Parts: sequence; C-alpha cells; structure tokens
Amino acid sequence: MQSPLFTDFYQLTMMSGYLEAGKDKQNSVFELFFRKIPQQGAFCLLSGLEPALEYLENLQFSDEELGYLGSLKMFNQAFLDQLKGFRFRGTVWAIPEGTVVMPHQPLLRIEASLPEAQLIESALLNMINFNTLIATKAARVVQAAGSDSQVLEFGLRRAQGPDGAMSASRAAFVGGCVATSNSLAGMRYGIPVRGTQAHSWIMSFGDELESFRAYAHRYPDSALLLVDTYDTLGSGVPNAIQVARELKERGHKLAGIRLDSGDLAQLSIAARHMLDEAGFPEVRIVASNDLDEFLVESLRAQGARIDTWGVGTQLVTSKQDPALGGVYKLVSIQEGDHWRPCMKISSNPGKATSPGVKQIHRGLADGQFVGDVIALASENAPQPGTSIHDPLYVTPPRQLEATHFEPLLEKVMENGRRTRPAPALTEIRQRGLDQLARLPVGCLRLQNPHLYPNGLSDELYELRRQLLTARA
Amino acid sequence: MQSPLFTDFYQLTMMSGYLEAGKDKQNSVFELFFRKIPQQGAFCLLSGLEPALEYLENLQFSDEELGYLGSLKMFNQAFLDQLKGFRFRGTVWAIPEGTVVMPHQPLLRIEASLPEAQLIESALLNMINFNTLIATKAARVVQAAGSDSQVLEFGLRRAQGPDGAMSASRAAFVGGCVATSNSLAGMRYGIPVRGTQAHSWIMSFGDELESFRAYAHRYPDSALLLVDTYDTLGSGVPNAIQVARELKERGHKLAGIRLDSGDLAQLSIAARHMLDEAGFPEVRIVASNDLDEFLVESLRAQGARIDTWGVGTQLVTSKQDPALGGVYKLVSIQEGDHWRPCMKISSNPGKATSPGVKQIHRGLADGQFVGDVIALASENAPQPGTSIHDPLYVTPPRQLEATHFEPLLEKVMENGRRTRPAPALTEIRQRGLDQLARLPVGCLRLQNPHLYPNGLSDELYELRRQLLTARA
Repeated sequence: MQSPLFTDFYQLTMMSGYLEAGKDKQNSVFELFFRKIPQQGAFCLLSGLEPALEYLENLQFSDEELGYLGSLKMFNQAFLDQLKGFRFRGTVWAIPEGTVVMPHQPLLRIEASLPEAQLIESALLNMINFNTLIATKAARVVQAAGSDSQVLEFGLRRAQGPDGAMSASRAAFVGGCVATSNSLAGMRYGIPVRGTQAHSWIMSFGDELESFRAYAHRYPDSALLLVDTYDTLGSGVPNAIQVARELKERGHKLAGIRLDSGDLAQLSIAARHMLDEAGFPEVRIVASNDLDEFLVESLRAQGARIDTWGVGTQLVTSKQDPALGGVYKLVSIQEGDHWRPCMKISSNPGKATSPGVKQIHRGLADGQFVGDVIALASENAPQPGTSIHDPLYVTPPRQLEATHFEPLLEKVMENGRRTRPAPALTEIRQRGLDQLARLPVGCLRLQNPHLYPNGLSDELYELRRQLLTARA
Repeated sequence: MQSPLFTDFYQLTMMSGYLEAGKDKQNSVFELFFRKIPQQGAFCLLSGLEPALEYLENLQFSDEELGYLGSLKMFNQAFLDQLKGFRFRGTVWAIPEGTVVMPHQPLLRIEASLPEAQLIESALLNMINFNTLIATKAARVVQAAGSDSQVLEFGLRRAQGPDGAMSASRAAFVGGCVATSNSLAGMRYGIPVRGTQAHSWIMSFGDELESFRAYAHRYPDSALLLVDTYDTLGSGVPNAIQVARELKERGHKLAGIRLDSGDLAQLSIAARHMLDEAGFPEVRIVASNDLDEFLVESLRAQGARIDTWGVGTQLVTSKQDPALGGVYKLVSIQEGDHWRPCMKISSNPGKATSPGVKQIHRGLADGQFVGDVIALASENAPQPGTSIHDPLYVTPPRQLEATHFEPLLEKVMENGRRTRPAPALTEIRQRGLDQLARLPVGCLRLQNPHLYPNGLSDELYELRRQLLTARA
C-alpha cells in the first residue's frame, strides 16, 4: 500500500495549511509509541518496521492521485504542484523489528519538515499498530506452546480483509510461528506454507477411508489426514492407521493426523495411544479449533499430546484485544535556531505525553534484560545504579540492577534513504525468539505477569514536570 | 487482492489431489454462511459481495505464481499445466450486497467443479466475513446515532493492516457512515472524505488562537477546529468563537468544532450553549474518543449535543467481537446423473450443517420483514401461513404471519461472468438503510434485541433429520 493517499484526509488539509502559513519548511520531530500492552501482558514484540520503511522510500503522488485531489476543490494549484514533487526526505530512528518493546517508548522517531512528518502519520500507525499487535499475540501463543510443539498460522479466512491477512501472516511469523496456510504470504515473504485437507475433501468421496487413500497416494510422505469428519476415534483414527500401514508397505510415512473438533485433550491422548500401539509413534498430531494461548496452555496442562497447533481467528484478529493504540506525537519543533520541546497535556492524565527527543537505554545484567530508561536523546548513557521514574504515576524512583546499557533506537533512514538493507524475515523472527529468552521469565506469564521495569530518566522526568506545572 | 495464491495452501494440495483422483471435473455446490451474529445482535448487513465477484472474474495464475508453486516441489507438471489455464467458470447465486441477513442462510452459493469451488473458498470467506462484520458494526453505530446526527469513519490508523483499512472504509460506508477520513478509499470507492486537524497542528504554532486563524484562513468555509488541546471550555471554544466572528466579518462561516477528550456529554452541552449565545447556532459539533454504539447511545441519552460522531478503532476492528465466523460447506455433489446432498455431522451439534442446495424466502407483510424460510432450492415458494423449524434447537414449528415471500438468492454470475454490472456503492448503501427500516424495530435494539424469525422449511428440516439419523 504505497499510495500517499493512504492517509487521513486531515493530513492533507494540514499540509496545505502549513504551506499557506509559511510553515512548510519548518522542521519537527515526531515519535510513535503506545501506552498500553494488549491483554494485560508484559511485553510487545515490535513488528511492521521494514514495511514502513519501504513505504517511506517509495512515497510519491501519481497523476491520478493529484487529479483526484484537484477534483475535491479543496486545494489550490500551488499546493498540488508542491505535492507533485513530494518525496519523503526525513531522518528516521527506530528500534529494530523483532525487539521487545514497552509502553511510552518511542518505537520510531521521525525528523522531517512538518508536512512530510504529517503525511506519513496514518500509514505508519496502521503498519506498526497492527503488525506489532499480531507479532505480540503470536509470541504469546508460541510461548504457551513451549519448545516441544509448533504453532502454525492459518487465519486467512477470518482476517481483516485481504491485506489484513497478508500483514497477519508476516507478523505471526515474526512472532515465532513456523509456517502459514496463506500461499501468497508464502510466495511474497518466503514463509514456509503448510496445509492439510478440508472436510469437503472427505465428504466429496463419500467414504472416509477411500478419501484418505486418495490423498495419501498423492502425498505419500507429507499427508496430514483430517480425522474428525464422522467419528474421530471410531473411524477417523482407525482409517488413518490403515492408510499409515499401506503407506509403510510401500516405503512411505504418514506425516500426521489433524483434530479439528471435540475435546482436544482427550482425543489427542487417545489418538496418540492408538497410533503408538499400531507402531506409528512418529505420526504427528495437529490440532485446531478456535485456539488461543490460554487454550493451548490449558490443553498442555491437561496432558494433551499435540505436536502442532493450528491457530487462526484468535491470532490474526488478536480477538481478545483487537487493536494496539499506538499514537504519533509532536515532541519537538524548530523555531529559528531553537528547538522547542512539545508535549500534549490532557484532561485525562494518562494521555499526557512526554516532551522532547528521546532515546531508550536497555539495562542488562548477565545478558538478561533488567529494565529500560527512557531518556532525552541529548543525555549521556545511564550508569549502573541509575534510577527511573514511572511515566505516569507518582511513585518513588526505582533503581535498576543493570551492569551496562544499550541504546535501542538506531538511525535507519537518512534523507529518505535506508541506512542499511532490510534484514531477512527469518533474521527478524530469530531476533524475536532471542529477545523473549532474555526477558525476566515472569514477564512471559499469560496472566498477572511480572511488570518489566521501564521509566523516565531523572532529566526527562524533570523536564516533563516543569512543562506540566508551567501550564497550570 | 486478485492473486489465486491468496488461498489456504490445502486448497492447492486438494486441487492437485482431485486431479490425481480423477475428480477434477466433478461438479459440486458449496454454500457460504455464518452461524452467529456478532455482539448478540439480531441482524447482519451483508457486504463484500461485489469485491468477491470482481476477484472471481479476474482469477488466473501468473508465471511468477506458477514458478513459486513449482519451487515447492509438491506439485507435478500436469497439475501446474492445469493451473496455467485456470479460470473460474462456475455459477454463483448470492444475496445482494446491503441486504439484512441471518444465521444459517446461504449468502453465496457456488456451483462449480470441485477444484474451482475449493480454490476460492479462503478468499471468499475473507472478503465476506470481514466486510459483513464491519458493515454490521457500522449499521449498529448509525442506528445509535439516530437520524439527526451523522457517523464518520476514521479508523485507518488502527485498522488491521493497509487493506484492512480499505475494506473497512468501504464496508463502513455500506453500513451507513456518511464519509471516511481515508483519502485513498475516497479516491478508489468514491466515498466522501472528511477531516479536521490534529493536535500537532495546534502545537506547532505554540498559540492556539493563531493556529485556529491560520487554518480558518486556508479553509474559510469548511474549517473544523479541534478545541481540546489545552482547555476545551477555557480556551478552545472561546478561541473558536473568536475565529467564527472574524470569519463572519469577512462573509464566511466556521463549519464546526471538534471535541476529542473529556466528558463529551457535558462538554458538548456547554460548547453548544457558548456557540449559541455567541450567535453561532449553525456551527456543528463533532465528537470523537474511542466511541462505539453503546457510548453513542448513552451520550445521546444524557443529552449530548453532538452533530457528527467520529468513530475509528471500535468500528474498523469491531472491537467487541472482531471476527465473523462465516464458513463454506459442501452441500451437494454430482455422482453420475445423481446429485447427493451432503452435510457435516459434528460432535458439537451447533456445528452440524444443513444438507442440499438452498434458497431463502423472506416473508413480508405491509412491506415489513416478518420472517425467513430457508428451503431447498427445488421446493416451491412458501405460502402464507407456512411454518419454520429452528435450524439447531428442538422447538415447536413457528408460523409466519407473512402475506407473501420474496426469494433472496439471485444468480449473479454464470460461467464465470457477472450477469449484471456492479451496482454503485451509494446504491448498496441506500439498500442497507432501506432494509434496516423494514426489520421489526426490536431487532435494532443494541442489547437483548428481538430475534428475527428464521428457520428451515418442513422439507429441508425432514431431509436434515433423515441424514442425521441415518448416520446413527
């Protein structure tokens, strides 16, 4: 979605207004952040950065788009002419995709003229919000599945429109899924694709065993047989075992069976037993049926023998909490030689922002993450023993047990061009897995997790306090 | 999203299997339906049909796509050659977009060979599920807003990826919204676009009054001023009134103000009073802040003076219930000269389907909808006094007080070509508004609505009963 019209209309009316007011060259800094982790979790996994950078690099207005804007009779020719030459020429700092991120942390920092920074707001939010939401959800499901089972994303049919499905497949892979059912995402992003068969396959044959044989004949080493069309344990599993025997005689191996209804704990335990008894301990059991991380955790606690979890609707819509409320706020503006830090004050204290251009310093000890400092970019890196202040609540400062700090924001774009090529998606995925392993383990708990230490530096806290009280 | 790879991978493996099993010419009938109305409502508004038909008309495999499938080493050359010539040549029956629909009703009926019918399943479900979900949500919000205020969709930044936002803007318009903030949806679908200004506009000036003046200077007859950046009633509204006076002196009119935080009931009543007192009763009040239909209804009950409701996240994600669980099931298959009706039996009785090819007859009395009959397509149209059977529960049959019946499913595609051109989006939207006005008014209630009568004909009920008991 590279069209510059993929933006809220007010961005365009404001751009035209900036030109009129002589503010179209004025430099500004905007930061993109979110305030709340979905589902009362304790982490988000950043995703959507690389698609966002690709969007920025390719942004320009086509004749058709300019013609449409002209047809609205809202814009004068001087503005349309300016749009004709428009390119994004700003500088972008960002946290790498696949990094664990926390509320109030700037995920992206945009340094650009007011109209440039404004035009891109809506698309950046769209991409970062949705991708981060789904990568985070996927990471939760993958954590629940543990290291001895795999998670497969197959949400295409319930995703939020076609591109919703494409974004979701990519983000789910970033979050640790091993494959997708979405063939186009397979082609476009290089994600492994997987599939079993539908009930309609079984029903089209009339006879279950015959339908299994036909499929296994076509895919003698990769067939996954759907065993719940008529009676899972009464006919489905016995017929699958029969086919497994026939395949074995011909030197092949049945890959697995799939359960799609009923009590997945009881059925998988019984099916595992039947398969093992028949001499097929290596035939995998795939399960699906409106699964989410809580069901996966509960089924595992009940001894379910499931090797692969197929997760669809709940994953691609993040059904329990289907939006990440990321925002994009002006934090500093150039006035002549001076930069004025900006903050939004709100009658809702939770909506007030933090002023000034920022950097995040992640505190480490023994390679593990111990806490983050949100600081002004102009500050020196924090020292061991530094304290942080809650971004919103009045609480005592908290000392971090870090031995050293690493900055999270990197310059990823300068003058509208990337400073480095996009990493491979598999690299981004691996980064996510590594990052989660470095979080305090309590942060991975699905309910009532440990809250990761994350707060403002002394200097930022003080600036925020001054600006808040100056207004009063 | 016209790629045939926008499908679950198992559709492709099954297609290849059908070819191998000599079943690739076998004719089948599939129906697409949902089982449950989101948010415990009493209606859905069908949307997504026209995009689905456009997809079907344009479906073909590119060389890149065939190359990708070949690279997976899962498919033989005979199958890839078959795909090269693939077109959808089936017949489609459908309920027109913008129609009120109910659970268990076939929204689309696909008559095609097994591989054709199978390939398109995932994309059809994706489009119908998401569009219908959002059109239904929009209709709920529009009903809550009543006939004296308008609803504007501006969910782009929180929508489910870029095309999620595009689909959502289109579906929200079908559901009765008057405009969108999404400029690209404006261009592509001809939906009116609207916008106000962001807090960053106000903050970039430092002075609120100056920022209002600059904007009003640029848009002297259409400016909507955002009044909550610093102090809504203390500075925002007084500054807006000052600008309204200055505009009036120059022969122009301030269009409106926008409230985006705080108590929208109290603030809108106070702002309305201040504007009226100052002689500006025609200046409109626009409100936004995480609104949904329940908040709109509640604010109106509390006397809020709001002319336009800006609805974003809650609308485009259908946040309370973010997926419509539509499914696509084989209902009949040709075996020689005979058609065999199919149904899926499930250990979960709510998941069992109804067999056979169907038509829906909507019962009317005095132009109002009084109940629907789901019947076999081979049956005669029902007569006044006909009875219906609950699709799932064992209950006494229910007599419909209809004076006549109209069939809902129309043949919209034959041999892969539309039977008529796509209607204009404004026509579809108007159809939706007309349809909702013909539902029993209790069905529009947001909570505990009247459940619209909807059930199976005697003949379909009997066939379903026979097939269910034959299995046992």
